[in-house]
Amino acid sequence: MPKENKNSALKVNQGIEQPPVVNPYINNFYSKKRTGLLTKEEYLKGILAGNTTILSQAITLIESSRTDHRALAQSIISECLPYAVKSMRIGITGVPGAGKSTFIEAFGGLITSRGHKLAVLAIDPSSERSKGSILGDKTRMEKLSSDPNAYIRPSPSGGSLGGVARKTRETIILCEAAGYDVIFIETVGVGQSETSVHSMSDFFLLLMLAGAGDELQGIKRGIMEMSDLIAITKADGSNRDKATLAKALYGNALHLFPPSESGWVPKALTTSSVTKEGLNEVLETILDYFRHTEENGYYLHKRREQSRFWMYESIQEELKSRFFDDPAIAAKLDEYEQKVLNGEMSSFAASAQLLSIYNKK
Amino acid sequence: MPKENKNSALKVNQGIEQPPVVNPYINNFYSKKRTGLLTKEEYLKGILAGNTTILSQAITLIESSRTDHRALAQSIISECLPYAVKSMRIGITGVPGAGKSTFIEAFGGLITSRGHKLAVLAIDPSSERSKGSILGDKTRMEKLSSDPNAYIRPSPSGGSLGGVARKTRETIILCEAAGYDVIFIETVGVGQSETSVHSMSDFFLLLMLAGAGDELQGIKRGIMEMSDLIAITKADGSNRDKATLAKALYGNALHLFPPSESGWVPKALTTSSVTKEGLNEVLETILDYFRHTEENGYYLHKRREQSRFWMYESIQEELKSRFFDDPAIAAKLDEYEQKVLNGEMSSFAASAQLLSIYNKK
Repeated sequence: MPKENKNSALKVNQGIEQPPVVNPYINNFYSKKRTGLLTKEEYLKGILAGNTTILSQAITLIESSRTDHRALAQSIISECLPYAVKSMRIGITGVPGAGKSTFIEAFGGLITSRGHKLAVLAIDPSSERSKGSILGDKTRMEKLSSDPNAYIRPSPSGGSLGGVARKTRETIILCEAAGYDVIFIETVGVGQSETSVHSMSDFFLLLMLAGAGDELQGIKRGIMEMSDLIAITKADGSNRDKATLAKALYGNALHLFPPSESGWVPKALTTSSVTKEGLNEVLETILDYFRHTEENGYYLHKRREQSRFWMYESIQEELKSRFFDDPAIAAKLDEYEQKVLNGEMSSFAASAQLLSIYNKK
Repeated sequence: MPKENKNSALKVNQGIEQPPVVNPYINNFYSKKRTGLLTKEEYLKGILAGNTTILSQAITLIESSRTDHRALAQSIISECLPYAVKSMRIGITGVPGAGKSTFIEAFGGLITSRGHKLAVLAIDPSSERSKGSILGDKTRMEKLSSDPNAYIRPSPSGGSLGGVARKTRETIILCEAAGYDVIFIETVGVGQSETSVHSMSDFFLLLMLAGAGDELQGIKRGIMEMSDLIAITKADGSNRDKATLAKALYGNALHLFPPSESGWVPKALTTSSVTKEGLNEVLETILDYFRHTEENGYYLHKRREQSRFWMYESIQEELKSRFFDDPAIAAKLDEYEQKVLNGEMSSFAASAQLLSIYNKK
């Protein structure tokens, strides 16, 4: 990457100790204690030193359902927060078949070849897992898996979208503290998870196949308008002309959208993960976006708004869980929902009655 | 309207007594009691008879902050529910300047001239009021205001979007029970309220000006993709060519969007509220949509999903209000929010600490 890019878009982790060449002794030292927990200081030191074993163990704490693990995780996250700045968080979505895994493999390689450290995370709630998860299958990203400057972590398993999203957002913070200055947050792109990914990314990349239609089935409407860049994938061989046409069509369509708050005008590009054509342009477009939003202050503004959003969002998630997990509510919920669905009771009357059951406790 | 349309898309309020010619004695009878409350039976009888004075009084109960008023309103709504079927709920949005009020005036007149009864409601939270509310200003819809088959009710005032949306949704039910078979739910189109309108409409109409750009500033991204029809307004005089071009551009763009769950392909049309050109096409398109979604079952499916959505939504709203109105939370909220905004505390740590304050109560 040219130096000027680095200065404008990527003043990453200034003043943070760069990860040392991995010291086998240290890894050995930690691995001895692997069955137990490390202290907060040990985790922190390991993460800030870019030790991926420690990083992975700390992420496992985030994902744990044990209260003591979660508490330790929270205190690690708090300490990592000051280091989780000036990164590029890039949300990536696209329907199954759009070639997400090969794109991430090829584009990720370009990122690390430019001197960046890349973490690839995912939001992939269990209910959506069957529909095209890629990160469960690291073998599809062979090169990136063995790239010392890339760290791949599959989606936390199980639980609601809210829970999975929270864990991923916390994992971002640890990865950034560990020196990963580019974060991919990938999603399978067929459900509600795109919105979650969007609300924790700086930049939102939508991967599309040439030829709209059946391929798009399942993409939530509204996602196109949230995108900062649409990359038409598989623009090679006999598919190239179709992809070029699609790029023109989407490019025109994007101009019709309401302007985004960032002042950025979304673009459409063609890419090929096979010939590598277009990948440089994708990267330059992303760097342009970061320069643009750093200059106009939107980058920080959005980060702050996202932090606020997630504070309120997780309060709501918890209030909801408490309510719906309450045995008195759980016992009655289906009955009321059925009445509402059958038009026997208004949504608001059902809500009021359930709330009054909850109050009596 | 041709008979076959009426049969397919509009089997409205079958078996419900049609509103009588207003009987001055009855109005007088009720007006005597206006300072007090009627009985539930009186409200119900009046609403089902299409008496707009009684309807307005019942809506005032919905909007009241008094607990006894709200309880009475709930019992009236419950009784009205069975009659609130087979209507056409049409959400209408568009930026200020798109000519919403003149469109509603002209298009509303067409609707009533076809033998329908039209209720025009609005969602217009106080925070958005200054940005272009139309229904506060009935004088802009002079003809519709004096049309005996149209009922115009300004947005309930004050309160959060959630509260305003709930009141509007309940008002829809009363209006439908009163024989209004077409409901417009209008919003100023510059905030979060479009999403609320979308979740209580069968059909979503977006009014656009020719020439995207500054005019679109403030429309939430994602709204275009939610639209079932984009009507380019003011397609007359020197503006006609520009509007025709815009129609073609949007028409092309709409084809690129992911297919909607309803199987409906959104359209773009030009309209003029001055020459009335295009208004018939808008109506025919809307009737097409209703025929299409009645046939494939999506109409009822969406209504049921919306009922379910609002049940959960209003539970969440109430849980949130209780939390944030709690004095212990209110006293600490700003402090935690600031810490989150300043990156001193993670969103999730702040959320956890606020929840633990709430628990101690």
